[in-house]
Order: sequence, then C-alpha cells, then structure tokens
Amino acid sequence: MPPAFAVREAREDDWPQIWPVIRDVITGQQTFPYDPAMSEDDARRGWLLAAPARVTVAAAGGLVLGTANMYANRPGPGRHVASGSLMAARQARGKGVGRALTTDMISWARASGFAAIQFSAVVETNTPAVHLYESLGFITLGTAPGAFRHPVLGPVGLRIMWLDL
Amino acid sequence: MPPAFAVREAREDDWPQIWPVIRDVITGQQTFPYDPAMSEDDARRGWLLAAPARVTVAAAGGLVLGTANMYANRPGPGRHVASGSLMAARQARGKGVGRALTTDMISWARASGFAAIQFSAVVETNTPAVHLYESLGFITLGTAPGAFRHPVLGPVGLRIMWLDL
Repeated sequence: MPPAFAVREAREDDWPQIWPVIRDVITGQQTFPYDPAMSEDDARRGWLLAAPARVTVAAAGGLVLGTANMYANRPGPGRHVASGSLMAARQARGKGVGRALTTDMISWARASGFAAIQFSAVVETNTPAVHLYESLGFITLGTAPGAFRHPVLGPVGLRIMWLDL
Repeated sequence: MPPAFAVREAREDDWPQIWPVIRDVITGQQTFPYDPAMSEDDARRGWLLAAPARVTVAAAGGLVLGTANMYANRPGPGRHVASGSLMAARQARGKGVGRALTTDMISWARASGFAAIQFSAVVETNTPAVHLYESLGFITLGTAPGAFRHPVLGPVGLRIMWLDL
C-alpha cells in the first residue's frame, strides 16, 4: 500500500526535504525549463514564494513526497488567472501525489477568486503530467514547437494548458 | 514627414525618457498585463535588464520614441527561445517605430543564435501589434481566453505568438 499522505501548506523547515525534490527534477532536465545549475538559495527564493502566493507539500507524516507553488500568472489586468508548478519526488511518482497537489491547487485558485489556471510550459513528452491535467479538465491552448531541449528526445514542444474555473 | 529615427541600444541616461513611455502604457491598461501602480524603481529594474538581455530605444536625435527589451524566454532547456516586449510613445504610433523595434529584435535574436521568438501575452484587441507581428511572420500558437481584463472592452484574450528563426 502507498503511504497515506496529505497536502498542507509548506513551512520553512520543509525546505531541506523540498530542495532534493527540486534538484532532482531540474538536473534531470526532462520536465522543467529551469536552470539545472540553479543554486539552492536561488531555488529557495524562486519556490518558497510569499503570500498571496502559496506553497504546499504532500507529506506522509514527516516525509515530503512532493511540492507545489501557485500564484497570479500576471499582474494588473492579468491577475485573475492563476499559475503554478508542482513536482513529485522520484520515489513517490505514480502514487497520486501529483493529482493531490493539483486538485489542492485548483481548490485554492477557485476559493481565491481566480477565473482560470494557466500552465505555460508543460513538456509534451511528460505524458503523466499531460494526462493528469487533462483528466482534471485542462485543455491545451497551443504548443510552442521545439521550445524544450530534452536531453534524450531532442527538441520537444511546451504545451500551454488551461483550466476555466 | 515623420522624424527620422534609428534603433540603438539604450543607455542609463535614456531612462528619464523611457519611463514616461512605460508609465503611459501600463496606466492605460489596454495593451500590457503589467501592474498599473508599478513604481518607477520597479519599472527600471524590470525593463533595463542586464546583459545577456538587451534593451533598445528608437530615437530621433535625442528624442526617445519607443523602447524594447529582449532576453531568453526561459532558462536551461528552454533558453534557445527568445522573448521580449516593446512599447511606442503615444505621439509616435503609426510611424513605424514598433516595426523598427521588432525587426531589430528579430535580427538580434537570430544573430544571438536563438531558434525562435515567443511573445506570450499579446492582447488580442491590440490589432496594430497583432498585424505588425503577423506581417513579420509571427503565428499565433493559441489564445488564453479572457486572460486580460481590458478597462473598456472587458475580458479579452492574450495571444501566444511565435516566430521561427
């Protein structure tokens, strides 16, 4: 049986467990267009965003299995659309962690009054993510062709995905 | 006759003329999803990006008629796609300033080895911009529906536009 886990707001003292999840994802360079050489300090600043943004973890007891952040996609006349990112720990994939983080994000966005969620850079070969978002109602607005250089597959597209709330 | 102007790299001492152009655009809230209450300091930090990004002005003698900035759209596996923004001074619109800034940006992106340019938030009711970019070969990958709250027209779409280089 998979470990029972729950999604909750991240705390500063979760960072030592969040950072290895992020580092593993960005050095793999298969699913996020982030700098693979990003320092831990830059990652912390970029991920642990202050309110009104929000950061969550999926945790089983004291063990962090995944993390997400979420925020207004743009300021001013674009501030009614949310965006966010989520990552699951390698050892926790396929166990519903991504789904739980995403449904929590959707609930937060709806409760916060956002009209939609936009994911601007979903790697098209990341089929677990694409299928997860589609199963939750996201559609693909378009794909930036070859916008992501996958270390194994070469240039692949970045989907712009969208969920009306 | 329109004044003769040329596009050149911006200098720090252009800022007193760049800021009114930006302020006019963002307080109008019709063409850019920027915070209309943005401070001059934040605008300067956000617009006058350091190398390897680049900032330009279209100037007629000492008079700034428009400005652009340009940079890698994403880091890491996405760093081969450029992006940028451009604004023309109100009194200089319809005189080719936007076209000159865009063609200069395209030349820079090509010379810098970028594979494409992505504009991620072109307000669909900004028809001069849409027509300009289309005339230079940009296509629309998709439109985020209602992602921009226009003060007169209500919710309008943000086009994601793309030029292969």
